Amino acid sequence: MPAPIPVPDILARRSIRAFTDQPVTEAQITRLLEAAMAAPSARNTKPWSFVVVTERETLNRLIFKDAAGMLAQATLCIVVCGEPKLSEYWVQDAAAATENILLAATGMGLGSVWIGVHPHPDSEQAVRDTLDIPAHIHPLCLIAIGHPAETKPPRTQYDAACVHRERW
Amino acid sequence: MPAPIPVPDILARRSIRAFTDQPVTEAQITRLLEAAMAAPSARNTKPWSFVVVTERETLNRLIFKDAAGMLAQATLCIVVCGEPKLSEYWVQDAAAATENILLAATGMGLGSVWIGVHPHPDSEQAVRDTLDIPAHIHPLCLIAIGHPAETKPPRTQYDAACVHRERW
Repeated sequence: MPAPIPVPDILARRSIRAFTDQPVTEAQITRLLEAAMAAPSARNTKPWSFVVVTERETLNRLIFKDAAGMLAQATLCIVVCGEPKLSEYWVQDAAAATENILLAATGMGLGSVWIGVHPHPDSEQAVRDTLDIPAHIHPLCLIAIGHPAETKPPRTQYDAACVHRERW
Repeated sequence: MPAPIPVPDILARRSIRAFTDQPVTEAQITRLLEAAMAAPSARNTKPWSFVVVTERETLNRLIFKDAAGMLAQATLCIVVCGEPKLSEYWVQDAAAATENILLAATGMGLGSVWIGVHPHPDSEQAVRDTLDIPAHIHPLCLIAIGHPAETKPPRTQYDAACVHRERW
């Protein structure tokens, strides 16, 4: 049985966009992917795949929009992909795997931020072209990861106005 | 600052479909929703809302397909919804909130299982009709929750074949 992957506080996951140049270890990368592939998927189809990028030149080339600029500092990017022909639920399944990576990173003292790709066709194609991803695979998002160079306090954005009881 | 919501092991989240009749407390429900609304969302648009169902008759009426049959045992259902006009990324954002609920439930000793609704129009309409959800709101999924009457060991379904390095 694999070693536990603890998250001391779900609320401690914050979007971190500044990183030091300390690399993420191979052991840490494996743990992040073990967390990802512990996510649920509809009928356990696991319609996901992952491209792990640590080469500086490739990280820089993945900056396909201004909002991905923190990849210039991140030492790791995990590109979370889905295969629609495997499941019509691929977006939610790959998103659950993404959230597991973000939480596992938080638990390991790493910082991370989710960079949206799908459903923008131009963004998907830019990421595909950079990483030689085949046309039937859809990049859902990039996750920029590294040792944090900024800190943010835990928070929930709980809003009672978003909660309905028994019916809408 | 809200109290931490710990998850001792991400790998311990398993799909639990058998429940005792012990209710989930109001304090636990609030914590689950705090975890949900700690999820990231694109540009922090928070395109989500939640319908909390604990009435037995309504739980039974939510069984819109065979795969939702465990709602006959669950003491709580959280219906996670999204509003597409708020964000084109609403599916992934609401899915991240869902995964946070599943992990928080695991951390609290509760069992849970994700029941897919979107993108099936018929399923969405069945849930809308049962809960008076307006047409512009899309139910992403139901989460059946309760005190577990079955146990499963932690696991990852890590598969090296799903991992690519530097490029596809």
